[in-house]
Amino acid sequence: MEKIEKTKMNKMNRTLKAEVLIEALPYICKFQDQKIVIKYGGHAMVNEDAKNWIAKDVVLLRFVGLNPVVVHGGGPEINKAMEKMGKEPKFIHGLRVTDEDTLDIVKMVLVGKINGDIVSKLGKYGGKAVGLSGKSGHLIKAKKKIQYVVKENEKVEVDLGRVGEVEEINTELIDILIEKRYIPVISPLGIDNYGNAFNLNADIAAGDIAGAIGAKKLIMITDVDGVMADINDPSTLYKKLTISEVEEMIEKGIITGGMIPKIEACINALNKGVESVHIINGKIPHSVLLEIFTEEGIGTMIVKD
Amino acid sequence: MEKIEKTKMNKMNRTLKAEVLIEALPYICKFQDQKIVIKYGGHAMVNEDAKNWIAKDVVLLRFVGLNPVVVHGGGPEINKAMEKMGKEPKFIHGLRVTDEDTLDIVKMVLVGKINGDIVSKLGKYGGKAVGLSGKSGHLIKAKKKIQYVVKENEKVEVDLGRVGEVEEINTELIDILIEKRYIPVISPLGIDNYGNAFNLNADIAAGDIAGAIGAKKLIMITDVDGVMADINDPSTLYKKLTISEVEEMIEKGIITGGMIPKIEACINALNKGVESVHIINGKIPHSVLLEIFTEEGIGTMIVKD
Amino acid sequence: MEKIEKTKMNKMNRTLKAEVLIEALPYICKFQDQKIVIKYGGHAMVNEDAKNWIAKDVVLLRFVGLNPVVVHGGGPEINKAMEKMGKEPKFIHGLRVTDEDTLDIVKMVLVGKINGDIVSKLGKYGGKAVGLSGKSGHLIKAKKKIQYVVKENEKVEVDLGRVGEVEEINTELIDILIEKRYIPVISPLGIDNYGNAFNLNADIAAGDIAGAIGAKKLIMITDVDGVMADINDPSTLYKKLTISEVEEMIEKGIITGGMIPKIEACINALNKGVESVHIINGKIPHSVLLEIFTEEGIGTMIVKD
Amino acid sequence: MEKIEKTKMNKMNRTLKAEVLIEALPYICKFQDQKIVIKYGGHAMVNEDAKNWIAKDVVLLRFVGLNPVVVHGGGPEINKAMEKMGKEPKFIHGLRVTDEDTLDIVKMVLVGKINGDIVSKLGKYGGKAVGLSGKSGHLIKAKKKIQYVVKENEKVEVDLGRVGEVEEINTELIDILIEKRYIPVISPLGIDNYGNAFNLNADIAAGDIAGAIGAKKLIMITDVDGVMADINDPSTLYKKLTISEVEEMIEKGIITGGMIPKIEACINALNKGVESVHIINGKIPHSVLLEIFTEEGIGTMIVKD
Amino acid sequence: MEKIEKTKMNKMNRTLKAEVLIEALPYICKFQDQKIVIKYGGHAMVNEDAKNWIAKDVVLLRFVGLNPVVVHGGGPEINKAMEKMGKEPKFIHGLRVTDEDTLDIVKMVLVGKINGDIVSKLGKYGGKAVGLSGKSGHLIKAKKKIQYVVKENEKVEVDLGRVGEVEEINTELIDILIEKRYIPVISPLGIDNYGNAFNLNADIAAGDIAGAIGAKKLIMITDVDGVMADINDPSTLYKKLTISEVEEMIEKGIITGGMIPKIEACINALNKGVESVHIINGKIPHSVLLEIFTEEGIGTMIVKD
Amino acid sequence: MEKIEKTKMNKMNRTLKAEVLIEALPYICKFQDQKIVIKYGGHAMVNEDAKNWIAKDVVLLRFVGLNPVVVHGGGPEINKAMEKMGKEPKFIHGLRVTDEDTLDIVKMVLVGKINGDIVSKLGKYGGKAVGLSGKSGHLIKAKKKIQYVVKENEKVEVDLGRVGEVEEINTELIDILIEKRYIPVISPLGIDNYGNAFNLNADIAAGDIAGAIGAKKLIMITDVDGVMADINDPSTLYKKLTISEVEEMIEKGIITGGMIPKIEACINALNKGVESVHIINGKIPHSVLLEIFTEEGIGTMIVKD
Repeated sequence: MEKIEKTKMNKMNRTLKAEVLIEALPYICKFQDQKIVIKYGGHAMVNEDAKNWIAKDVVLLRFVGLNPVVVHGGGPEINKAMEKMGKEPKFIHGLRVTDEDTLDIVKMVLVGKINGDIVSKLGKYGGKAVGLSGKSGHLIKAKKKIQYVVKENEKVEVDLGRVGEVEEINTELIDILIEKRYIPVISPLGIDNYGNAFNLNADIAAGDIAGAIGAKKLIMITDVDGVMADINDPSTLYKKLTISEVEEMIEKGIITGGMIPKIEACINALNKGVESVHIINGKIPHSVLLEIFTEEGIGTMIVKD
Repeated sequence: MEKIEKTKMNKMNRTLKAEVLIEALPYICKFQDQKIVIKYGGHAMVNEDAKNWIAKDVVLLRFVGLNPVVVHGGGPEINKAMEKMGKEPKFIHGLRVTDEDTLDIVKMVLVGKINGDIVSKLGKYGGKAVGLSGKSGHLIKAKKKIQYVVKENEKVEVDLGRVGEVEEINTELIDILIEKRYIPVISPLGIDNYGNAFNLNADIAAGDIAGAIGAKKLIMITDVDGVMADINDPSTLYKKLTISEVEEMIEKGIITGGMIPKIEACINALNKGVESVHIINGKIPHSVLLEIFTEEGIGTMIVKD
Repeated sequence: MEKIEKTKMNKMNRTLKAEVLIEALPYICKFQDQKIVIKYGGHAMVNEDAKNWIAKDVVLLRFVGLNPVVVHGGGPEINKAMEKMGKEPKFIHGLRVTDEDTLDIVKMVLVGKINGDIVSKLGKYGGKAVGLSGKSGHLIKAKKKIQYVVKENEKVEVDLGRVGEVEEINTELIDILIEKRYIPVISPLGIDNYGNAFNLNADIAAGDIAGAIGAKKLIMITDVDGVMADINDPSTLYKKLTISEVEEMIEKGIITGGMIPKIEACINALNKGVESVHIINGKIPHSVLLEIFTEEGIGTMIVKD
Repeated sequence: MEKIEKTKMNKMNRTLKAEVLIEALPYICKFQDQKIVIKYGGHAMVNEDAKNWIAKDVVLLRFVGLNPVVVHGGGPEINKAMEKMGKEPKFIHGLRVTDEDTLDIVKMVLVGKINGDIVSKLGKYGGKAVGLSGKSGHLIKAKKKIQYVVKENEKVEVDLGRVGEVEEINTELIDILIEKRYIPVISPLGIDNYGNAFNLNADIAAGDIAGAIGAKKLIMITDVDGVMADINDPSTLYKKLTISEVEEMIEKGIITGGMIPKIEACINALNKGVESVHIINGKIPHSVLLEIFTEEGIGTMIVKD
Repeated sequence: MEKIEKTKMNKMNRTLKAEVLIEALPYICKFQDQKIVIKYGGHAMVNEDAKNWIAKDVVLLRFVGLNPVVVHGGGPEINKAMEKMGKEPKFIHGLRVTDEDTLDIVKMVLVGKINGDIVSKLGKYGGKAVGLSGKSGHLIKAKKKIQYVVKENEKVEVDLGRVGEVEEINTELIDILIEKRYIPVISPLGIDNYGNAFNLNADIAAGDIAGAIGAKKLIMITDVDGVMADINDPSTLYKKLTISEVEEMIEKGIITGGMIPKIEACINALNKGVESVHIINGKIPHSVLLEIFTEEGIGTMIVKD
Repeated sequence: MEKIEKTKMNKMNRTLKAEVLIEALPYICKFQDQKIVIKYGGHAMVNEDAKNWIAKDVVLLRFVGLNPVVVHGGGPEINKAMEKMGKEPKFIHGLRVTDEDTLDIVKMVLVGKINGDIVSKLGKYGGKAVGLSGKSGHLIKAKKKIQYVVKENEKVEVDLGRVGEVEEINTELIDILIEKRYIPVISPLGIDNYGNAFNLNADIAAGDIAGAIGAKKLIMITDVDGVMADINDPSTLYKKLTISEVEEMIEKGIITGGMIPKIEACINALNKGVESVHIINGKIPHSVLLEIFTEEGIGTMIVKD
């Protein structure tokens, strides 16, 4: 027989906890059975605390009836592995030039290390996760990406090696896994009809997958709070924007630098049929839950006009 | 374009909220897909706030993957209706003497009013609830209860009229509804093979149903915090007891009065195969969630030896 | 060892019985797997013999492969209950003015008494019936009915209280039950998004339900043989009429009084997609079977032009 | 607009019809979803009226929720065909001596003619029938029957040619068809592992099939009313007998001649697990329905002790 | 312990065997889950070796994931049976004049003999085959064929008796059997709404069935290698032709005689939606496999323009 | 229009091809729907031709109705990668000492490179393959392996680092994929309850998986022909051995060296319930097909006594 000491304080806390759970109810109800793609990237992939936050958030989404699908990138880890193996990373227009050796390293790091780590973390918190490269079940059919650069005022094709772009997403395998309540964790590798693998841009691939499986939302985990009027002033965060607004902001130079390809990936996802794309900061604890389950959200939501 | 003001305070609160959601994760994971019967009764049935708490709690249980089944009683409302119709309630050994007219009133109040109100409340918060009397789908097969009283040192049979006891629970209909994610709300009325209806004790019926459907837990919503050494001192609450402990406490006179039949109903449920029965206080906001989703719980849990 | 005496007479009778069963074969074949809504009302709800006839008929329909759905009204019983509770029924344009107290009585009588009695009767004859109010599974979404009366040559809105009209039928729950071979028995109560209940006209609701679930037929059980040229002469019964014919008959004053709203409910059902509506007399034994399984039928069938 | 003349007489008749349908209700309810094997043979296979009765009866059984399976014989037609082809039928112990040519004729008549005719008739009255020989889907695995005769006081083996006995029934195909609401019509032909076909005794095969599929009843359509104390006096019909009673009756010489193998086939079926076997007279119109759907039945029912 | 002697030769042979299996892989992959109708006719129906080849080929198709459906004819055997029964076969325009007696013989031979033999053979090699006449499950709805002949320069209708043409194919039964991995074997008999059977042209019926079930290919097993420029010179075989090419060849007199109705049946199949029709020679061992699983095929393939 | 030249030679070849396909029929029939685990290792993992043979063989198994599951090892490639990264491989008792860095390399090579390559190859030949590490779906639950060495006559525990052994196989995910006709390709990595990964012996893991999923056969692809009396004389190959025979051969020193742990893995598989384990030579083209689809097989089969 155990007795318990109940103080008034304790009672209040408990009730508060329950209230918080209940506050999530309308959101849980609203997003029931819907697919949500989470593009996992940036700082949150290397910080142990952030890894745990995000894994817990994703597992919770699954348990409360949503169907999360994780797509991850891998930038810094690939560079680290290349250096270890004595290769120097090289980029053109933000795309990694990928020779055969580099592709091997990309595959090993993305699929062999990062993907497995995410799967382990999700498993640790009770989720049934399945790691997939784009090769499994012909998931991502890709082709070589033709890239042009402007050189002496002329548009010239450059060879990026084994860099590809998505031709078609074969959703059968994802659908089977989701139906059986698994969480697919996808590495951005594509394959062509001859069995050749290609390195893909994870942001774009996440949007292609989100569109193909009919996801409601695409959550982009980044290292910034969202789109801000002044990048140094968090109070200037835009909560909600439309495609034409962000396009105007790019034109006007408000959105610049590394945020531009991110925004282009968001627009790609919206064009593929996703209802809203959310740029959130992976450094904020549980930012995924906060974005989905609170009224005001935490980052920038972009929608169609 | 909407901008948001983010204060540090606000940020903290949000993170705290997320932490609370995440704290529930292991419990959600543990009870996934399990059936939980909630016996709804007492003060919580007449207080509007409590009605809302409990409805929200039950709907949340459903959304996070548990399968709640609600069984309700109806005491005070039946008395009120009887008085309105000029009939005086009469009890023997805590059981309502039920003539044909009284049975009509019982049916009207239980099924026509209370059951419907619970279904409406659950629906309001996003749950798909279905009201069932024990008659639907031959759900509760009952027979007339034979009751004895001691009169002048002799055991004498008394006629309680249309008061019955459960003979068999037909779980097919409940299983169909649960599988399709509905929340069954059951009035404690039974029926015999000739189509005669019987008034049943809701606590006992809840245990019979919980056992028949293979429920993991039976939550008894009452007007007290649980089993206490001193009924006036909440600090004497017992957190966990076994059947033999409560039986000893009844013998020793620690458990007395109205708590005795409640405890007997708990023992009935455990004997029917339920793993644990929980006596909780419906006056505490969200006591259902707190009992299921927190380490320490909030009431008294009774288990087999 | 039992021997049997077989007389020629006996033999003939038996063969005759078999012939009757066989005569139903083409109708059973024709209506196989089709949904048929039976609006149960009038005298047949209070006469014990009629209750038994109709219950047997409905159960037989189920066993021979049709999918009956029962929708019931409750007029006289509600008045009786109101009187017992000292309230005076009040009607405007045939619609019951329904204050909160009246709504409580309506709910108690419809759901708590009448619906349960029908479910019991069907169960007694081997049917698996499930009682549903319009609240269960968000079955009937309703809104407040705006009613106008003409007062001093002006159209004036009158407040009927909690009288509603159907906005939408959510057929999921009915479909699940039918697929599992249950007979749904529905009380005409609706609910709005805020959880407010409304009293509905049972004839109209039956047509709305029949249309929504794709029923082939709506059988209206009434206290008259059907539409007659001379209400006092059964030989003037019309066997088959079209919408435009009944509309003309109303205009010409052949159809009058209480039959007019009945006919309007029939037209509503046909407009919602039901193929034929049948007005039959509940006082004739087994009128439901006779209408469905005999060539000539027994009442008046109304179809589209 | 059609009016109808309703006379009192007419009304009575109609009600009577409905009463007959309703009388079948408890039987329909009791036998719901159960499998019933009908061994179709004798006079009823050559008389056009009887063919129609029986086809209608079987189709009705299907529509009211039972699962009939038809097994047919073919005696007289095979003899007729053999004569046409200039072959003389030859029997030993009631078993047709079957050389290869005879087997060809048996197959052609049983499968090509009789089976097809039954399927057509059932189809004509709305049933979905499928003709099967024992070869389809490895339905009946058979082996050569070893038959002995007593010759000059010695038991001598005789070669019956391609006469077989059932080794195993493969119920998969029957179960698939029943589940999809087809009526299997089976010719008594078996096949061994080498693809050799065998002619089987239809009565015995019907019992083997009934046992293998878990049929409740086996109905034997014959040319007599059942088992009678005096074969010339229908009033001496036994309504119900047990295995030990019929065995005693054979011993005592009450059951004689062609009835003996029939009774042995009945006992075989009961030993294979069938609950009751019914010997009925195919010359009585709708004897199948009468046996199943009336209290007193029409023939002799044999059950285990 | 068994040791094995392995010679180099032996090793080579084995590897060669494996290579052959592997060569079939792309075809197996390409035709996976597709339906293929095999019209079985001609010499291959009477030669024991050919029967075995074809049965093995069809069973192999099933095991490697294709869904074969066999439709057979029966010409020579029917004539033989008619002669045995003293009837003389009579043809008009290649169609058998079919009186009632002839129809009986046709049914007996097609369904009772040929169909059963094919089912047995398929079973012998491990296939689960089900024999079906067009009557089972209302499979082939037919009507009397109206045939005209030119007599003294006038088109005159002639009565062919019970010769029919397909009105509608009811694919439900075939689909059920295919889904459960059975091989349907269909006799070309049709039935009208009144239960009358009709004798059908097997080539045409095979095309109708192939079209109705959505078959990819129709394989016509004949006694010639395919369409040849010079019927006596196999080297003039056409490998692939279009509808307009064969139509031109008929016009020009290159295709003549018995090949013309065969070609018309092919065109019928293509018009019903079949992708390609293949005329192959049943005398060549395993011609079915060779046509489907080798690059160059073995007969003549006809496709739409 | 294409004509073809058909020489007699050509015809013979074609027929021969068909005969080979047909020879496989009884094996295809026998192993239909059975699960077969293929442990892929040794030389066959680095030779491009062998990779293609094996991929084609596995895909063919899938298409002819078997359910192959591939488990692969990775020895030589891991060493190569370690060297590239400047780490020296270290082994104790044939087990790789696995520190954290080495584990990272193992994961990257096994999952990121080898597994992905196998999946690509299978995909190239038409198979739907899914790469799985033991982490996905909690597939392989493992724990740290406690290893002892004998040092100065004492049994001493040595720390192998992150080397584990299988505790439990969770077959749900494999079963789902097989049912949907995918080919699972599994890397031998396990995970404990805290999310720690472990390097596993692939041969043992393959046996554990084969046993858990109820596989009929485990095919071990090695670099030798099987178990031989004289390792240099292929003619001394044992075709079939039992557990007690191989145990005796180990004792007697006939089986020595690297073959011993291989044989122990075979015995493990048999003890886990696999019916037969087959040691085959991956250097022989299509050895997988030859072992399964030919009478004499190609390697050594080991079965229970």
